[in-house]
Amino acid sequence: MAKRITPRSENYSEWYINIVVEAQLADYSPVKGCMVIRPRGYAIWERIQETLDRMFKETGHRNAYFPLLIPESFIKKEAEHVEGFSPELAVVTHAGGEELEEPLVIRPTSETIIWSMYKKWIQSYRDLPLLINQWANVLRWEKRTRLFLRTTEFLWQEGHTAHATAEEAQEETLRMLEVYRRFAEDYLALPVLTGTKSQSEKFAGAVNTYAIEAMMQDRKALQAGTSHNLGQNFAKAFDVTFQDKDGNLSHVWATSWGASTRLIGAVIMAHSDDKGLVLPPRIAPTQAVVIPIFKTANRDQVLAYAEKLLNGLRGRFRVEYDPDDNNSPGWKFAQWELLGVPIRIETGPKDMEAGKAVLVRRDTGEKISVALPELPDRVEALLEEIQQSLYRRALEFRRSNTASISSYGELAAFFEADGGFAESGWCGDPACEARVKEETKATIRVLPFDGGERASGGCVVCGKPATTLAVFARSY
Amino acid sequence: MAKRITPRSENYSEWYINIVVEAQLADYSPVKGCMVIRPRGYAIWERIQETLDRMFKETGHRNAYFPLLIPESFIKKEAEHVEGFSPELAVVTHAGGEELEEPLVIRPTSETIIWSMYKKWIQSYRDLPLLINQWANVLRWEKRTRLFLRTTEFLWQEGHTAHATAEEAQEETLRMLEVYRRFAEDYLALPVLTGTKSQSEKFAGAVNTYAIEAMMQDRKALQAGTSHNLGQNFAKAFDVTFQDKDGNLSHVWATSWGASTRLIGAVIMAHSDDKGLVLPPRIAPTQAVVIPIFKTANRDQVLAYAEKLLNGLRGRFRVEYDPDDNNSPGWKFAQWELLGVPIRIETGPKDMEAGKAVLVRRDTGEKISVALPELPDRVEALLEEIQQSLYRRALEFRRSNTASISSYGELAAFFEADGGFAESGWCGDPACEARVKEETKATIRVLPFDGGERASGGCVVCGKPATTLAVFARSY
Repeated sequence: MAKRITPRSENYSEWYINIVVEAQLADYSPVKGCMVIRPRGYAIWERIQETLDRMFKETGHRNAYFPLLIPESFIKKEAEHVEGFSPELAVVTHAGGEELEEPLVIRPTSETIIWSMYKKWIQSYRDLPLLINQWANVLRWEKRTRLFLRTTEFLWQEGHTAHATAEEAQEETLRMLEVYRRFAEDYLALPVLTGTKSQSEKFAGAVNTYAIEAMMQDRKALQAGTSHNLGQNFAKAFDVTFQDKDGNLSHVWATSWGASTRLIGAVIMAHSDDKGLVLPPRIAPTQAVVIPIFKTANRDQVLAYAEKLLNGLRGRFRVEYDPDDNNSPGWKFAQWELLGVPIRIETGPKDMEAGKAVLVRRDTGEKISVALPELPDRVEALLEEIQQSLYRRALEFRRSNTASISSYGELAAFFEADGGFAESGWCGDPACEARVKEETKATIRVLPFDGGERASGGCVVCGKPATTLAVFARSY
Repeated sequence: MAKRITPRSENYSEWYINIVVEAQLADYSPVKGCMVIRPRGYAIWERIQETLDRMFKETGHRNAYFPLLIPESFIKKEAEHVEGFSPELAVVTHAGGEELEEPLVIRPTSETIIWSMYKKWIQSYRDLPLLINQWANVLRWEKRTRLFLRTTEFLWQEGHTAHATAEEAQEETLRMLEVYRRFAEDYLALPVLTGTKSQSEKFAGAVNTYAIEAMMQDRKALQAGTSHNLGQNFAKAFDVTFQDKDGNLSHVWATSWGASTRLIGAVIMAHSDDKGLVLPPRIAPTQAVVIPIFKTANRDQVLAYAEKLLNGLRGRFRVEYDPDDNNSPGWKFAQWELLGVPIRIETGPKDMEAGKAVLVRRDTGEKISVALPELPDRVEALLEEIQQSLYRRALEFRRSNTASISSYGELAAFFEADGGFAESGWCGDPACEARVKEETKATIRVLPFDGGERASGGCVVCGKPATTLAVFARSY
């Protein structure tokens, strides 16, 4: 019997964890902070990988694989990088029965090991741009973890590119941010804000970090992907230079960008409801489930009808079939709703007699009776309608929970109450940013690209002239 | 300029490493024994993954992901397992700035962490069979490493299945061995022997290990995939039981099976020649390269012709294009031969005038002039012919280097000379097996499934009645 999901209104955190566990997406492991991604969760990751991988290849990138272990001394070569990552490192001190001469850290991210190789591979402008992506596991020793959203080990992709000019590196940084935005909006049905991170929120070792930020149903922000312009920081740390056409030697320009299994958490949190998981059809491992409704007397005929219908859908859609004798239709309906399959297709004896089937939308519960010959086209149209509808609903939710706020009192009150995204002027002073964080727990999620033009009036904290609009929110 | 590849006859090991490095398949990393898989090497792995993953899914398996780190105490729960893997473990003793209460090992294989989870997931016969596969990195601290063939960290897949009966587990073990055999023969063009490993060569923790074994060009054997029947060993170590239909409680039966990036090494070693890499078309990331041959005066026309031809191939084949101005055709031919592209398509001004192109086979060097309209079909047929031809050549090589040997003197002489696969009777005594290993460095690669029927006469070592035929060879 499906277990009860705690309603969102009662305990949002518990609701989220209930769905992850009960829909068999992930489970706790014996190692603190590490998760097990179960087949139904991993299948979502496979859809994400497949789609992002295609988008990366279309933009000229190739995959490679670099070692899991990094000499501790490498991490220390870039000053900000070591400061940011040192507290989170897991360290291998012994191997093969002996103590190592130099400890090795498990990669928290791969800039250092990759740039040590780029030094070997890059000599001339002909070697540039170098556009490489890696699918890998990384490890960051986190104190507070939550399945998918923040785990000690997680799966991700990390792109690492090398360029001849600062301009090309900046173009690449924004190109990949746009890939993430398109992927989040078109596939995950997650509307996202894009923009620049403030200096205090940027990646350790970057010149500038750009992010996509989505709003969850509790009005908190979730950073769903980041793209970094690394300037010449890593090229200088690893002394990677190239000879240009005129024979001059310069340091290489770099970017890196990543998205992780956190995206699975984002998509669960953004769309699900108190009955369980809700998945956008483009990313759902199973798009429709066929459930025959029968009694002993008509079992064979109903199953034959259901299987005929099923064969008309297979190949064109990702479809499952549940002819199990042991559970009642009501139990099955609840179970498949919990599992987040976008369309349920019911075929009972009356449907069979009428040559029809009933489609039930997971997102709205709406029932639609459809004649068999029209079924495949109707399923396709309905999947598309659900995809669009989830996106519109999430966008509407974000809009109605975004406020333009110009005074500090209002800002404090906004986060005292329900919160959401607050768009406010900011003078650019880290002290003002720090005060908001200290007093409201909200941080600057992004400085929108048109934040300079849209800023009018004063900084929401100090009142001095605002140089940009900033989006403040509490976050995951 | 392409560097010189050491000929096989001069130094086989150096020849292999030259190809791996010069064809940009992999590179040495700053961490001892770990490799970097470069884009041209990783693309082969992507083809392997894609194909095997499809074959696993067709046989009912689903992917999941388990943690990289395993509590040290888990490894110790299965007696043979700990004995086999202890010497190769890398150990994390510190994380997040503190010493860990219990050290964590980096997975050398995942039986223990997976069976600790199966204990949570399996209660009833309804939960069986549980058919899970994982794509992951693993780490075994090796003393002697060689790019792709034996590295401290490697990428692999590991299947872990749970069954209600011993019979089902045995069927699964052999089913997956057969998947590996089909994959090796049909895709990698690698003829393989299948059979059982002797007890001294089995996986640490298995009841029986089965393997596919291929012959390399130096007549050594390479184990290219293994499938283990684990009996109830891990179910007992982690106390995983299930209730059958009658309410009785029994321990679960298990299998595991794996193949790794070592397959890339196998395919390189089996087919390549002194000019560089040779790849079977089905696994080659690039199946054909179009090289226009032009001078300044006819450049535009020749390139236009080559691009027209190219457009007729794209979509249907994985094809690259090399219109570079800086290198001569001769340099390009050598370079693409080094990189192992199965078909080179040359288009010069004379070909253009005649409405033709020249196909050059990488494996034989044969040149075939083809009229443009016929080109795509001829490319398809030629790719298939190359695939079959590589397989036949490897099979012929193995046959001509396999000997039926019945006396110990002959066996010793065989391995004193060129060596190969020796088929000999064996009494089953580990002492006889150990003597062969000690004195000839050859081990039993497999006991063929029909080895019992084919055994006649005495053990090649002690002369007592042979219980089975054994295949002896030196190996990687």
